[in-house]
Amino acid sequence: MNDRDMPDQQQLKAQLTAYRQSIDNIDAALVYMLAERFKITKKVGEYKAKYNLPPADKEREKRQIERLRRLAEEAHLDPDFSEKFLNFIIREVIRHHEQIREAEGE
Amino acid sequence: MNDRDMPDQQQLKAQLTAYRQSIDNIDAALVYMLAERFKITKKVGEYKAKYNLPPADKEREKRQIERLRRLAEEAHLDPDFSEKFLNFIIREVIRHHEQIREAEGE
Repeated sequence: MNDRDMPDQQQLKAQLTAYRQSIDNIDAALVYMLAERFKITKKVGEYKAKYNLPPADKEREKRQIERLRRLAEEAHLDPDFSEKFLNFIIREVIRHHEQIREAEGE
Repeated sequence: MNDRDMPDQQQLKAQLTAYRQSIDNIDAALVYMLAERFKITKKVGEYKAKYNLPPADKEREKRQIERLRRLAEEAHLDPDFSEKFLNFIIREVIRHHEQIREAEGE
């Protein structure tokens, strides 16, 4: 690389800071969306516990994974990652639902 | 529970469907936000590789975790989960950055 093309320390830092501000904004949005998602799955857990509905629905999960993989492709996100992400979230939801059932003394 | 309070199958299904539609909407938003986040971290990875900057920044990660935990509390999301979530994302980012460095023959 030509020395003239090399940004100085201040320019490097400014560019990194700009990227990081965008990442931080997106992370805040993700946290608020996740909080809302768990509010809904908490209600689903309470509803299923109240009416004795089965906690897991494998068919529903399969459809969710297929849909998220399709959306990921549209968004140019790795579909495998979107599947890993959904499984990560679902593990947390199951943990919450178990807590709800335990709290209800089942 | 009194039989009169028990919703019939159709009502149960309609309520679950309503919850699931909200979950699906949020999941679509999450996928698109994640796609955007990885677009930026990809640029960061390329930038760091180009100018030979260190791939990881432990101080930055520490600040990110503290901030996300604070945002999670505001959003009534489990702060421990927000930290697990960020670590899950960062693992994926590191995987991408390693791919970028390998592709550049480092």
